[in-house]
Amino acid sequence: MGGFPLTAWQGYLDAHAARFLDEFAELLRIPSVSTSPEHQGDVRRAAQWCAARLAAAGFSEARVCESGGHPLVYGEWLGAPGRPTVLIYGHFDVQPPDPIELWQAPPFEPAVRDGRIYARGASDMKGNLMIAVAACEAFLHTSGRLPLNVKFLLEGEEEVGSPSLPAFLREHKELLAADLAVSADSGQAGEEQPMLLTALRGLAGLQIDVRSASSDLHSGIMGGIAPNAIHALVEILASLRGPDGAILVDGFHDDVRPLGPEERQEMARIPDDTPAMLRHAGIRAAHGEPGYTPRERNWARPTLEVNGIWGGYQGDGVKTVIPCEAHAKITCRLVPDQAPARVLELLERHVHRHAPQEVEVSVRPLPGQGFPYRIPDDHPGQLAAERALRTVYGKAPYRYRLGASVPVTALLQEILGMQTVAFGFSMFDEGMHAPNEFLRLGNFAKGQRAFCLLLEEVASD
Amino acid sequence: MGGFPLTAWQGYLDAHAARFLDEFAELLRIPSVSTSPEHQGDVRRAAQWCAARLAAAGFSEARVCESGGHPLVYGEWLGAPGRPTVLIYGHFDVQPPDPIELWQAPPFEPAVRDGRIYARGASDMKGNLMIAVAACEAFLHTSGRLPLNVKFLLEGEEEVGSPSLPAFLREHKELLAADLAVSADSGQAGEEQPMLLTALRGLAGLQIDVRSASSDLHSGIMGGIAPNAIHALVEILASLRGPDGAILVDGFHDDVRPLGPEERQEMARIPDDTPAMLRHAGIRAAHGEPGYTPRERNWARPTLEVNGIWGGYQGDGVKTVIPCEAHAKITCRLVPDQAPARVLELLERHVHRHAPQEVEVSVRPLPGQGFPYRIPDDHPGQLAAERALRTVYGKAPYRYRLGASVPVTALLQEILGMQTVAFGFSMFDEGMHAPNEFLRLGNFAKGQRAFCLLLEEVASD
Repeated sequence: MGGFPLTAWQGYLDAHAARFLDEFAELLRIPSVSTSPEHQGDVRRAAQWCAARLAAAGFSEARVCESGGHPLVYGEWLGAPGRPTVLIYGHFDVQPPDPIELWQAPPFEPAVRDGRIYARGASDMKGNLMIAVAACEAFLHTSGRLPLNVKFLLEGEEEVGSPSLPAFLREHKELLAADLAVSADSGQAGEEQPMLLTALRGLAGLQIDVRSASSDLHSGIMGGIAPNAIHALVEILASLRGPDGAILVDGFHDDVRPLGPEERQEMARIPDDTPAMLRHAGIRAAHGEPGYTPRERNWARPTLEVNGIWGGYQGDGVKTVIPCEAHAKITCRLVPDQAPARVLELLERHVHRHAPQEVEVSVRPLPGQGFPYRIPDDHPGQLAAERALRTVYGKAPYRYRLGASVPVTALLQEILGMQTVAFGFSMFDEGMHAPNEFLRLGNFAKGQRAFCLLLEEVASD
Repeated sequence: MGGFPLTAWQGYLDAHAARFLDEFAELLRIPSVSTSPEHQGDVRRAAQWCAARLAAAGFSEARVCESGGHPLVYGEWLGAPGRPTVLIYGHFDVQPPDPIELWQAPPFEPAVRDGRIYARGASDMKGNLMIAVAACEAFLHTSGRLPLNVKFLLEGEEEVGSPSLPAFLREHKELLAADLAVSADSGQAGEEQPMLLTALRGLAGLQIDVRSASSDLHSGIMGGIAPNAIHALVEILASLRGPDGAILVDGFHDDVRPLGPEERQEMARIPDDTPAMLRHAGIRAAHGEPGYTPRERNWARPTLEVNGIWGGYQGDGVKTVIPCEAHAKITCRLVPDQAPARVLELLERHVHRHAPQEVEVSVRPLPGQGFPYRIPDDHPGQLAAERALRTVYGKAPYRYRLGASVPVTALLQEILGMQTVAFGFSMFDEGMHAPNEFLRLGNFAKGQRAFCLLLEEVASD
């Protein structure tokens, strides 16, 4: 406990730590993979679990809400009139577990090893979701009240880009009205080093489909005559990025806010974890746009990645076909002030301009577009979060950007007019979106304490 | 029957036509896909079926022979001492049926429609195999003898490049000794237009495997930092061929015999079926090495094709990963005097030279290397075949090359010292290696007649 005053909520958190972990594991056991149609029922089960859990924590209202896609969960406790209201955001869906053969244990059978809990969704973000719920429960079950009004909004489509969220926000503006949003979908820089998130990247994605003939062809009989869909796709993909990683799409960088010397200096002050990240991921050397450090590229420059490619024969041995189809999925991470629709337009134009004439090329947007996001350093919510983190960690948080995307932050700003403080306790090495994802149990406990303090700090503003 | 004298064998072929078709269908029902480990038993069943069928046709010996891989079938009738001996070559294995969803009927349930029989292997080459067997049976069951000595060698690994054949030929030189080989794995130019094959292309293939990290990575957290295995593979593949289809591998064309003006003129005399081939295959425009006609490219120039590519996420929706692995299968069709091992060496060197340093690239040869092949126009076997085809079709055969590979021809020359006459009755539009493969029943009957004549012509030389 160190130098912390033993508050009622702290005592409660300590007393119920084992149960919170059990409940966390219960949630991890639900394979709520939002991108897979066969897991539709599991995503709904996760929603029902969350609604029931909020009710058990003492929220006066907690319900599953329908949307065009996977359901959402709304909860509220509004027993502090005159006090501010925060809207806590999170998601209960997870990434697919594949490649499943690389997991050391089944991805939906949580296993505790060496102070960590391993399962798909442990770090992204069922742990952070449980942290927020546990913190609220600690207030409600000890004092019967929260220090301010709290609304919960949990979605089941974050990992597919929150397609139903914009309409839901627009239709429930009043219900969701708050002074500040707190996104639990975030992390810290280290076990002993807090951080404050100041920017997130946006997302835009598309699929390219190439067709060169009505069926696969015999490479002997048609070789030298027929075009090859894979070669055509390769040509298109090679035109999108240079070998050095620079994006070559015309106009792609037009709306990118240039990185000033002060910003670059501030970023450079934070210890560089790139070498450790590379080592951890088994990477030979960092790679990307020349003229920027890896961190600058990850935090403040857009990227373009082929996420998947397929075409022709993928089985054992040899099959001498000229494949008639080839496909690629591509996503871009965007930075201020890029707009997803504009980026997609530029990409589509580029693809068609570089498409070999002898094949048929079509392009379609992938779900999950999202604007990039920034919150000012002196925003009161950021300052409250800074005080809470200083108390728990005993030091000032880094001002961090993040290369990842949480589309909700841009949507909450655009539709509900509120800024978002990111307040989560995952770490970068925890295998999010990859096999053997885990969360550190130390952070699970520390996060609950920090979250209680955050609610008190915002309440006292 | 037109102007043909009604020989005993012709009467027999007519009388037993329905049974021959039934037996052909029986063989087509065996899914003898040699590239798929799960069909290993089916390939063996096809071998057993062929051995039994040769015995029933009247061959004095007919047996399944073991090899390192799929078994072979040997048969012989040597009751014509002092007469020449021919070695009839064929294969009873077939290509995989995928993409299976594009078949109008199940690929291993033969269906007769509009004078054609549809099934995987109908055209390549179970029909041609049955033609040769039926022709021999017609002699043996009417006169009790063949006009010359006949040996049969049928293999089950042609579609995977005949990996066990070289050793089998070397170990059975005496058993297989003959004056001439006849490969039934061939075709004709049209229903009314015969052809004589004078050259075949060879084959060399390799797989490229790229690894960029120990697991797939989150494209937000690692984007701008981590290399992407797919982009690295795309870069390598783009370096192999220019957008115009020209092969850019250093030294690749060094051993290619240049195409002389006379050869080009002779090729141009044969009506060009390229427009029909393109239309039939649903191709917008022919594509390939500049400076050559499509036929010249297909007959006398080497090609390089990516047959398959895969990496990253291929499922529904979006998955924002930086993939850690990417793979491609590549095969080249070779022309005289290219050697498969030398071509592979050049390819491997090229791939490593163009491999981005930040990823790990490995290359391994695929099974099925084969030398290109040529038989002189005035070879006695070619002249005998020409006489047989003239009798049946009433016109001179085209002197054809073929873009495809039948590795056995080069092997029979190299190991057993014999030349091969190609004598089959498939046609180019019959969907070999593609969905909805079929054989024309008219050619099935005509082929049996022609094959009987061929045996007589060779015997009378």
